[in-house]
Amino acid sequence: MDIKFCTDCGSPTQLKIPADDDHVRAICEKCGQVHYSNPKMVVGSIPEYEGKILLCRRNIEPQKGLWTLPAGYLENGESVQQGAVRETLEETRAVVEIVEPYRMFNIVFVDQIYLMFRARMKTDRFGPTKESIEVRLFDETEIPWDRIAFKVIRQTLEHYFEDRKNNLFSFGIFDIHSKLRKPDG
Amino acid sequence: MDIKFCTDCGSPTQLKIPADDDHVRAICEKCGQVHYSNPKMVVGSIPEYEGKILLCRRNIEPQKGLWTLPAGYLENGESVQQGAVRETLEETRAVVEIVEPYRMFNIVFVDQIYLMFRARMKTDRFGPTKESIEVRLFDETEIPWDRIAFKVIRQTLEHYFEDRKNNLFSFGIFDIHSKLRKPDG
Repeated sequence: MDIKFCTDCGSPTQLKIPADDDHVRAICEKCGQVHYSNPKMVVGSIPEYEGKILLCRRNIEPQKGLWTLPAGYLENGESVQQGAVRETLEETRAVVEIVEPYRMFNIVFVDQIYLMFRARMKTDRFGPTKESIEVRLFDETEIPWDRIAFKVIRQTLEHYFEDRKNNLFSFGIFDIHSKLRKPDG
Repeated sequence: MDIKFCTDCGSPTQLKIPADDDHVRAICEKCGQVHYSNPKMVVGSIPEYEGKILLCRRNIEPQKGLWTLPAGYLENGESVQQGAVRETLEETRAVVEIVEPYRMFNIVFVDQIYLMFRARMKTDRFGPTKESIEVRLFDETEIPWDRIAFKVIRQTLEHYFEDRKNNLFSFGIFDIHSKLRKPDG
């Protein structure tokens, strides 16, 4: 979102490179405040219960009606693990324990950094929420690959099932160049 | 930083919980725009050259005059790896290749997430910059432990040298509960 007005005094800003900087920033014409805009972290989990994976069907745009893993913006005042647990609870009503960090994704064209954790469901309690019209456990053979909402989620799931064959998971960082699911894959 | 005025129209904001939300946000009284504030990522590297580690002595507050690893805020439009390489170049003039992600730190009380990479210097070219009054390579035995600027950097270095004994590095996430170096450690 553009910073057209100063958050400190409400005066208009101008786009300029500050003296000691090399990036264009929104600078207040009146009070001189420099406003920074930085990438946001999205944290989420791959909840597993007795070998099945919990997915949620989106009740909100974009990609309403398609399936995804629970994930959302990291909030101030929480760790990345706490954020992933909270988002999972909010979107699926499932309580998870973090197992380990699994995948990070640079999604540069929307200024987002995803961090997805392997997670363990303590019980099989879960259910629909404001954000998820349907929540259910999927066996690997049941994953609705042609109805996954986002490329970053499909890639996470693909890597996960590939690594699970050998029960050998290791953290890695990848780039995503398009966010929305494309019909051609 | 508090969002006292709307970035979209310059009108005053009020702190409220939006209808579909559970966090307090700054909401514009006039246009209704909701303003989010989220943690920022700090990316940096542990530059290694022939077994030595490159540190820089801060030319800016806080902790001016103390030693640190090159690191800074991730910018829009770059990947975490690109950000770490850029910060290293800006603060030390060294060109590095990323080896692998090494440590992430939750620094919840300042809403920062650090991500530090192992990195390889291609040459031994480096030098002082606007942000670093002095830059030099340190052998493990020479690290100025009592003059490291931040706890997050000291912990990164401690973990690094510990892991290097066995040449066995693995990614991990840790919490930092105080930012500034304390005299008592």
